[in-house]
Amino acid sequence: MDREDFMQAALDSAENGMGFVNPNPMVGAVIVRDGKIIASGFHERYGSLHAERSAFAQCNKKGINCAGADMYVTLEPCCHHGKQPPCTEAIAAHGIRHVYIGSSDPNPLVSGKGAAFLRSRGIGVTEGVLKEKCDKLNEIFFKFITTGLPFVTLKYAMTLDGKTACYTGESKWITGETARRHVHRERLRHAAIMAGIGTVLADDPLLTCRIENGRDPLRMICDTHLRIPLDSNIVRTAEKVPTMIVCGEEDAQKADALKNAGCQIVCLPNGNGGTDLSALMKMLGEKKIDSVLIEGGGTLAWSALECSIVDKVMAYTAPKIFGGKSPFTPVGGKGAKSPAKAFMLEDTTVTALDGDILIEGRVKKCSRD
Amino acid sequence: MDREDFMQAALDSAENGMGFVNPNPMVGAVIVRDGKIIASGFHERYGSLHAERSAFAQCNKKGINCAGADMYVTLEPCCHHGKQPPCTEAIAAHGIRHVYIGSSDPNPLVSGKGAAFLRSRGIGVTEGVLKEKCDKLNEIFFKFITTGLPFVTLKYAMTLDGKTACYTGESKWITGETARRHVHRERLRHAAIMAGIGTVLADDPLLTCRIENGRDPLRMICDTHLRIPLDSNIVRTAEKVPTMIVCGEEDAQKADALKNAGCQIVCLPNGNGGTDLSALMKMLGEKKIDSVLIEGGGTLAWSALECSIVDKVMAYTAPKIFGGKSPFTPVGGKGAKSPAKAFMLEDTTVTALDGDILIEGRVKKCSRD
Repeated sequence: MDREDFMQAALDSAENGMGFVNPNPMVGAVIVRDGKIIASGFHERYGSLHAERSAFAQCNKKGINCAGADMYVTLEPCCHHGKQPPCTEAIAAHGIRHVYIGSSDPNPLVSGKGAAFLRSRGIGVTEGVLKEKCDKLNEIFFKFITTGLPFVTLKYAMTLDGKTACYTGESKWITGETARRHVHRERLRHAAIMAGIGTVLADDPLLTCRIENGRDPLRMICDTHLRIPLDSNIVRTAEKVPTMIVCGEEDAQKADALKNAGCQIVCLPNGNGGTDLSALMKMLGEKKIDSVLIEGGGTLAWSALECSIVDKVMAYTAPKIFGGKSPFTPVGGKGAKSPAKAFMLEDTTVTALDGDILIEGRVKKCSRD
Repeated sequence: MDREDFMQAALDSAENGMGFVNPNPMVGAVIVRDGKIIASGFHERYGSLHAERSAFAQCNKKGINCAGADMYVTLEPCCHHGKQPPCTEAIAAHGIRHVYIGSSDPNPLVSGKGAAFLRSRGIGVTEGVLKEKCDKLNEIFFKFITTGLPFVTLKYAMTLDGKTACYTGESKWITGETARRHVHRERLRHAAIMAGIGTVLADDPLLTCRIENGRDPLRMICDTHLRIPLDSNIVRTAEKVPTMIVCGEEDAQKADALKNAGCQIVCLPNGNGGTDLSALMKMLGEKKIDSVLIEGGGTLAWSALECSIVDKVMAYTAPKIFGGKSPFTPVGGKGAKSPAKAFMLEDTTVTALDGDILIEGRVKKCSRD
């Protein structure tokens, strides 16, 4: 095994924290001696031990002395006193010889300080091992910690001719099981999930995370005129699963009924009659919601792109053709006037999902004018 | 170099015939001695030397004795007297020791006979070297020779949200230069290119093959009511580029004007008012047109899928989003009633084209009911 293999092991370990550490980063660490992993740890839950300390705890429990061993950690160890004492001190105290780091700390006030502290203690430091992968694992954390705004992913499933439903409205199913399981993992990764009222009225979805030992994201419905039915699946499960209805005008009676059912009501009027998504993201950021997965429909998708809140697009594409002048399209709204005004994606990746094809890309932040 | 490398060299050679051998297959051959290629050849033009004889001709020209050498050929050598004498006899006459074959002859009456003849002459034969690649190179020939019908490819360029134009109709450009060059290669590969009258009226395209030393495919416009303008790019260039207007009703005066401009007029009425595409394919097959590339728009695409003439779909997908309730969709028409009635693709492949993504698949032949 080489450096990349050990860092990959730390990455695999880090992913175990997915869904439980937000708005903290996922972090994994492995301790290596004589080319073998002797302990590993990950950040398990918000407020719990950091990955490095979790690995040391495993050493202590097993009676392993890790003095003179190497550590691989996916994110630069912290050197400040937060909820937990600094990891850099623990690394020095345990006599680690060399630390291999994946991502640098994205916080410009802290970035590089952890590595510098370690070096000042005579510990070898190598930065940037599997940097791209480590950065990608925490793209949510990186945006949130630097902007205070949630990372927003626009996700949809479509056919190879760009339909999200047949002309009849039928859409079960477009993609296969593997792709649908992948979506549930994205629901786990994101702190909140957002859908438009049109999707709720058409599909009556649950929008929960159906993964064993997973956790449900906060469900948010953009529902300007509070049209959501009290007997919808969303409202009926609102006592169990956190649910927020975002409206543009308050209908006191309907709002009370929804509150009684367990929903949280947020009123954010805006000039255009729709939900003020920028204000909503700001409010969510203040509530430490670090990420939002937008899951339909096309009108909400366009509004989100238009007000520049979308960071990433995930298009699950099924190798089938519905045809027809279906009104069900992944991104609707007004649309771009000309190809030059399109929203451009970059850093595109393609993933095969058992027949289906996931195309992902970051929304280019440059101006469309 | 190993077997696969030599067969790849033969494949690369074969591709030089693209666009000039239809309805024959593209075939390449290399002669190898002591691990080195000493001669190579390909089928250059319909009616010219077969690849094997072209390689031998190169040997003769250079004064190379190929007795005891090996031959790699992408398609099973022919053993019947056609336009050319059988290649198997030439191989035996030149003292070739061992023949490595990519694809078997798709003609069930001939398949295996070439290999058997060679073996009967004491020549070693290995079949199926890079078989998948060799079969794919000649998917057009394989269909045409076994059915007498052209191989039909449905091609379109779309955004990642399934639009073929902005709501304004603007569509220049969706994909980048590399993808557009790729399309011109497909125009070279196919004997004919087909578009609906809607596309002609909207975009006034040329539908030529803009590759140096390429050749233009036959251009076919499905134009039920002969609406094509006499001053359209297609009609104005009809003297130079073979052009067929397929109508459903004959308007003698307009037809005469088009004929005078150099167009061929074909009248194929059908019950539904549109072009009878099945009859058209049968007619094209009889004229030795082995392949048709359908290039827009959505109505023609749906009709072609509906009447089961489409073999392959090529979706050039650009990593950008137009949004909007654009009526411009890759496949329109009536559309499938439910996901179970969708046209399914199989053997899907994904190719990166300098940012754009080409998704290709074969249309599953099973029933949609």
